[in-house]
Amino acid sequence: MRKVTFERNFSKHAEGSCLVKFGDTHVLCTASLEEKTPPWLRNTGKGWVTAEYGMLPRATGERMKREAAAGKQGGRTQEIQRLIGRSLRAVVDLQALGERQITLDCDVIQADGGTRTASITGGWIALYDCLKWMESRNMIKVDRVLKDHVAAISCGVFASQPVIDLDYLEDSSAETDANFVMTGAGGIVEIQGTAEGTPFTEEEFTSLMGLARNGIGELVALQKQAITG
Amino acid sequence: MRKVTFERNFSKHAEGSCLVKFGDTHVLCTASLEEKTPPWLRNTGKGWVTAEYGMLPRATGERMKREAAAGKQGGRTQEIQRLIGRSLRAVVDLQALGERQITLDCDVIQADGGTRTASITGGWIALYDCLKWMESRNMIKVDRVLKDHVAAISCGVFASQPVIDLDYLEDSSAETDANFVMTGAGGIVEIQGTAEGTPFTEEEFTSLMGLARNGIGELVALQKQAITG
Amino acid sequence: MRKVTFERNFSKHAEGSCLVKFGDTHVLCTASLEEKTPPWLRNTGKGWVTAEYGMLPRATGERMKREAAAGKQGGRTQEIQRLIGRSLRAVVDLQALGERQITLDCDVIQADGGTRTASITGGWIALYDCLKWMESRNMIKVDRVLKDHVAAISCGVFASQPVIDLDYLEDSSAETDANFVMTGAGGIVEIQGTAEGTPFTEEEFTSLMGLARNGIGELVALQKQAITG
Amino acid sequence: MRKVTFERNFSKHAEGSCLVKFGDTHVLCTASLEEKTPPWLRNTGKGWVTAEYGMLPRATGERMKREAAAGKQGGRTQEIQRLIGRSLRAVVDLQALGERQITLDCDVIQADGGTRTASITGGWIALYDCLKWMESRNMIKVDRVLKDHVAAISCGVFASQPVIDLDYLEDSSAETDANFVMTGAGGIVEIQGTAEGTPFTEEEFTSLMGLARNGIGELVALQKQAITG
Amino acid sequence: MRKVTFERNFSKHAEGSCLVKFGDTHVLCTASLEEKTPPWLRNTGKGWVTAEYGMLPRATGERMKREAAAGKQGGRTQEIQRLIGRSLRAVVDLQALGERQITLDCDVIQADGGTRTASITGGWIALYDCLKWMESRNMIKVDRVLKDHVAAISCGVFASQPVIDLDYLEDSSAETDANFVMTGAGGIVEIQGTAEGTPFTEEEFTSLMGLARNGIGELVALQKQAITG
Amino acid sequence: MRKVTFERNFSKHAEGSCLVKFGDTHVLCTASLEEKTPPWLRNTGKGWVTAEYGMLPRATGERMKREAAAGKQGGRTQEIQRLIGRSLRAVVDLQALGERQITLDCDVIQADGGTRTASITGGWIALYDCLKWMESRNMIKVDRVLKDHVAAISCGVFASQPVIDLDYLEDSSAETDANFVMTGAGGIVEIQGTAEGTPFTEEEFTSLMGLARNGIGELVALQKQAITG
Repeated sequence: MRKVTFERNFSKHAEGSCLVKFGDTHVLCTASLEEKTPPWLRNTGKGWVTAEYGMLPRATGERMKREAAAGKQGGRTQEIQRLIGRSLRAVVDLQALGERQITLDCDVIQADGGTRTASITGGWIALYDCLKWMESRNMIKVDRVLKDHVAAISCGVFASQPVIDLDYLEDSSAETDANFVMTGAGGIVEIQGTAEGTPFTEEEFTSLMGLARNGIGELVALQKQAITG
Repeated sequence: MRKVTFERNFSKHAEGSCLVKFGDTHVLCTASLEEKTPPWLRNTGKGWVTAEYGMLPRATGERMKREAAAGKQGGRTQEIQRLIGRSLRAVVDLQALGERQITLDCDVIQADGGTRTASITGGWIALYDCLKWMESRNMIKVDRVLKDHVAAISCGVFASQPVIDLDYLEDSSAETDANFVMTGAGGIVEIQGTAEGTPFTEEEFTSLMGLARNGIGELVALQKQAITG
Repeated sequence: MRKVTFERNFSKHAEGSCLVKFGDTHVLCTASLEEKTPPWLRNTGKGWVTAEYGMLPRATGERMKREAAAGKQGGRTQEIQRLIGRSLRAVVDLQALGERQITLDCDVIQADGGTRTASITGGWIALYDCLKWMESRNMIKVDRVLKDHVAAISCGVFASQPVIDLDYLEDSSAETDANFVMTGAGGIVEIQGTAEGTPFTEEEFTSLMGLARNGIGELVALQKQAITG
Repeated sequence: MRKVTFERNFSKHAEGSCLVKFGDTHVLCTASLEEKTPPWLRNTGKGWVTAEYGMLPRATGERMKREAAAGKQGGRTQEIQRLIGRSLRAVVDLQALGERQITLDCDVIQADGGTRTASITGGWIALYDCLKWMESRNMIKVDRVLKDHVAAISCGVFASQPVIDLDYLEDSSAETDANFVMTGAGGIVEIQGTAEGTPFTEEEFTSLMGLARNGIGELVALQKQAITG
Repeated sequence: MRKVTFERNFSKHAEGSCLVKFGDTHVLCTASLEEKTPPWLRNTGKGWVTAEYGMLPRATGERMKREAAAGKQGGRTQEIQRLIGRSLRAVVDLQALGERQITLDCDVIQADGGTRTASITGGWIALYDCLKWMESRNMIKVDRVLKDHVAAISCGVFASQPVIDLDYLEDSSAETDANFVMTGAGGIVEIQGTAEGTPFTEEEFTSLMGLARNGIGELVALQKQAITG
Repeated sequence: MRKVTFERNFSKHAEGSCLVKFGDTHVLCTASLEEKTPPWLRNTGKGWVTAEYGMLPRATGERMKREAAAGKQGGRTQEIQRLIGRSLRAVVDLQALGERQITLDCDVIQADGGTRTASITGGWIALYDCLKWMESRNMIKVDRVLKDHVAAISCGVFASQPVIDLDYLEDSSAETDANFVMTGAGGIVEIQGTAEGTPFTEEEFTSLMGLARNGIGELVALQKQAITG
C-alpha cells in the first residue's frame, strides 16, 4: 500500500476539509453544510449526505477536456460520485443529522490511480470535521450521527499476483480490478469487481477481499490517528 | 427465480434482436452492426462492442421524465449502459471481430426489478444473432469472435433471507443488493454489491455469490436452449 | 390500408396503454395520469392532455442516434409530439377532465412509415382506457370528457397513383405526402400536406382527402371494436 | 389582406436580404451563401437551401425568453424553420445550384400574426437577390436555379367568417387556422390546417383554400413588382 | 465619430425602444418591464435592470452560427451583456424603481464595429422611454429613478493615430482598443482597454480617455436632443 | 499587497505548473502542451496560447454550484478565462512557438479576492516552465517565444482610500474596482475598471494606475526570483 496521509483543515472556508494523498494521488475533499434537504426528504426530519467528484483537467498524464466546458459530467464521473455518496451515507444516521444536507466535494488535484478510494477515505475525514464543527455549535452529537468509520481500497491481479492499492500503471494493465468499501467494524458497504480481460475465479476474488480487509484496517487506523492527532 | 423467456428476432430491422422477460421485467435488446469503430481503435484491426440503455417513461409505476426531453442521460442510465458494454466485451474477441462496432440497445419496455441483469442476459442473445447474421455473410466466424456465454442475475438479502432475482418490491426493501455477471464457464466478469442499510458480512456475500452461480447456470442453459430452439 | 391491430393493456403500470400496429409499424402508447396541470392552467379548473414521442434507436433500417444521448429532441420529434397532443385535445373536454394532466407517451418499437398516424390512432385507445380507469374510481365520466373518436392516416401520390397508409418505401419516394386527422363524426382536426418534389394540384389534394376520409372511417370502426371487444 | 411591402437590400452584408412587412408583422430575411454543403450531399453535385427562424425576445406583446439564453430552440421554432426550408426548396433546382448552401435567416423584428407566411414570402425575395448576386459573378443562371415564385398566406375561420392573413388577435381566437404555401403557377407546396376548437368541415377548408389561392396570387404579383422595381 | 441617430418607439410592443445607429452599426434596443425581481432581491423593495445581447446571424460579413441553434451564448455575448447591464444600473436608483425588473434587449441588426457601445448608448434611450411609460401610469418618477445619462464609445490606436468610434475595419487592425462608459456628469462607469498586439503606454491611454470624454459628451448631447425632440 | 508566493512544479504530470498564492487566494496553474492548433491556425506556422478557469465548488465562503453539474460555464468564468488567455498571448511570439497549443488551466483551490490577477501572474510561471520543458527538448528557444513578463493586480477605492490587491471583503464593498495587466517593461496589456456604485473620476483612476504599476513591478520581481530560485 502506498503512503497515505491526511491534511485536515486544508480549506479556510469549508466546514470540514481534508487533502488526502495515496502516493501520487491527491484529492481535496471538502464538506459543505446547507440547511436544506433534497425535495423528497422535506418534512421527514431526515437529512442527506451527497457527493460530487471532479478531476482538474491536467490531473492526469494527458490533459482531459474540462467537464464544465464540455457541458456535462461523463459517465465515469457520475458513477464515482454516486459511489462516494452511498459509501458515506452507510455510516451516517440521517435521522440524527436532521433536515440538513452535507455535500462532499472530492476534487482530484493529481491522479495516479485509486482516486475513488482516496475520495471515500479522505471524504470520511472531511465529513467527521464537518460534524465536529456542527457539534461545537450544538447542532448535533457526532456520536449519534456518525455510526462508524468507512474507508476504501482497490485491489487487483497484476502480473498474476494479487496487489493492493494499484497505481495508474498497475491499474491500466491489471487483469482484474476490484474496489472495496468497508466500515471500521469490518462490515462490507460496497464491492465492485471487474474483469478487464479474462474472467476471474471466486478464489481470486476471495484473496482480493482478504487483502482489502487488511488494507482497510490500516486505513481506519490512520483515520483514527488523524482525527486525534 | 422468475420465469425467463427470450423472443428472438423481435425486430424486423436489427441484425440481431431479442425481447427478454424476467417475470414482469421486459427488455428489448437489439444489436446493430456498423462498419466503423470509435476513433481510438482506428487502424488497430480491432472492433468494439458497446451498449446503450433506456427506459420508456412509463415502464415504471410512476411516469419518469423522458431523458431525451430532459436533455441528458442520468447517472444511473450511464452506469448501467457501461456495465452492459463491459460485460458483453468480456466474452468477445475484438480482434476477431475486425474493425466494426456492434451497438446493443437495451430498452426497458416494462420494469419490475433487475433490468440491468435482464439486459445483459438478453443482450447476449441479440449479440449472438448479430454475429450469426455476419457469419452467414462470411464476415466472421461466430466461434472465433464469441468466446463464451455471459449472463447476469441480482441477489439480495430480503427479510433476512438470501433471495435471487429480486423484483421491484423486493429490491426496494432489500438490505443488501448485489449483481453478478458470469460466463458460461463460471468465470466472474463483474460483481457489484451494495449495502442499502446495514453493512453486510463476507459470509452473507459468499452465500449470495453461491445463489448467483446457480442462477446464472440456469440462465446460460436457457440461452443455449433459445439459440438452438 | 395495412392490417391495423390494437393490443390494449399492454403495460402493467400505465392507467391506459395500447400497442398499435399498422403493418410493420408498431407503436406503444401509454397514458399516464398526474394530479397536476401545467403552470398556465392552475386554478382554472381545466386539465391538459399532452404527448411525447420517441423512437427506439433501432426501430429503423439504420440505427439512429439515441436522442437522450444526443442531449436533445430533434425538430421532427417535436413536430410529431405537438401534432399528437393537439389531435387528442381536439376531442377532449378539458374542463370536464378537471385539473389533471394525462401524458400520452408514443414510443415507436418498430418503424415502417406512418408512425405519427399510428400514434394518434393508438393514442386514442390508451387515452380511452385511462379515462375508463378514472371513471371506475369516480373521478370523471368518460362520456363527458371524451367527445368523439379521433384517428389519423397518411395518403400520398406514389407512382402517379393516390395511395393510402404509406409504408416507408412508398413514403420515401412519394411525390406528395399528406397526413389527415379526423374525428368519428368526420370533422377535420389537422391536415398536413407536403409536396416532396413537384407541387400538387387542388384536385390531387381533394382525392387524397377522399381516400383519407374512408380510411379514417375504417380506423374508427376498428377502435370501436377494440374498446368493446 | 394587410398591406404587404418588401424592402430589398436591407442588409449591407448579406448576398440577398429583404425586410418584409405584413401589416405590423416585420421579418428580416437574409440569404447567406456558403461554398459547402451538408455532409449527405458531398460529391453529389447538388446544393442545399435551408432556413433558420428566430424571434427577438420583445417582438411580441409579452417578452419571451431568449432561445439562446434558454439553451435550445423550441418546438415551434423548429417546426417553422423546417417549413420555410421545405417551401423554398420546392422552387429550387438543387442540381443547377451546384455544391453550395444558401441559408435563409428569418428573424422576426416585430410580430403580429403570420410570421411564418411572411418569412416564406419575403424569404423568396432574399433568395432571388442572392441568386442574382451569384449570377452577376457567373456562378449560376437564376432562370435555371429558380423554377418559380413561392409565397404563403394564412387563412382562418374567425367569428364564423373565413378571413385571410390573420393578425395576432384574429389568430388567437380563430376557430380554424390554416397556412398555405403555393407557387406562382398555382401548385400547392404545403398545407397545414388545424382546428383550434371544433373540427372543421371539408367545405370550410375548401373555402379557405380558395381565399388563399387569391391571396397568394396577389403576393406573387407584389413579389414580381418588387424585383423589377 | 460616425453619424449617430436614435429612432425612438421603433417597436410597437415594448414599453421603451430605440433603433440606434452608429454609422453602419444598427442595434435595436427594447426595454421590457416585468412586475417581478430576481430571487435575491425579493422583499428588499429594490428593483433590477438587466440586459441581454444578441447578433442576428448575418449581421456580420460572414454568417455566424445562431446561438440559439448552437445551444449556448458564447463568452463574448455574455461579456457584453454583463457590461450593458452594469453600465445602465450605474445611473439607476434601484430602490426608487421598486420591486420590478427592466430587461434591455440589445439585438444587433447590422454590425460594423462598436456594437457594445451603441447598445449602451441606445439602451439608455429605451430605458428612459420605459421609465416615461411608467411615470405616465404613476408607477414611478423618472427624475428619482434615473440619476443621469450614460453613454459609451470605443477609442483605439490605429495606424499610430488615436481614433474614436472604430468601425469594423479599424477595430480589426487597431493596435489598442478601449471602451469607455461615462455619465452625463463625466463620471467614469467602466473602462476596458486591451492591447491587441504591442502593449500600450499610460500616455496613449490618457489620450484615448481624452478622446472618449469628448465623444461621450457629444453622445449625451444627442441623447438629450432625442428625448426632447 | 498580500504575501505572494509561487510553488513551481506543483503537478507531477503537467509540462509546467505553479501553485500561486496571493494571501488566502490559492490558484493552481498548469500548462499543457499539445501538438495541434485551433482550426483557424492550421498551416499558418503559428501556435496558440489559451486558458481555462474554474473554481472548486467550495473555494468560496458559500458553496457554489459545480459548473460541470450545471452543464455550462457561467459568464464570469468565460470572461476571466478570455482575459487570462489574452494577457499571456500579449507576451508570446506565436510564430516562434510553432504550430502547437499551450493550455493554461487556472483552478482556484481557495478564493479570497483577486483570483483572476493571481491566475495571470501564476500562469506566467507555468507558461515559462512549459517553455523551458520544450527548450530542453530542442523544440523552441524560450527567449524567442517569451517576449516579456506579464503580471496583474487589482486596485480599488475602499473606504475612500485607494488600496491594492483587494481581498474578498474589500472587493465586496469597494466603490471602484480595477484590474491592471502589465508587462515587465511596464507596457499596459489590459485595463478593466468598474464603478460599483458612484462613478469615479479620472484622477481616482490615475491614482489606481500608479498603485498598480508599483504592485506589478513587485510581482515581476517576485516572478524573476521564482524562476531563478
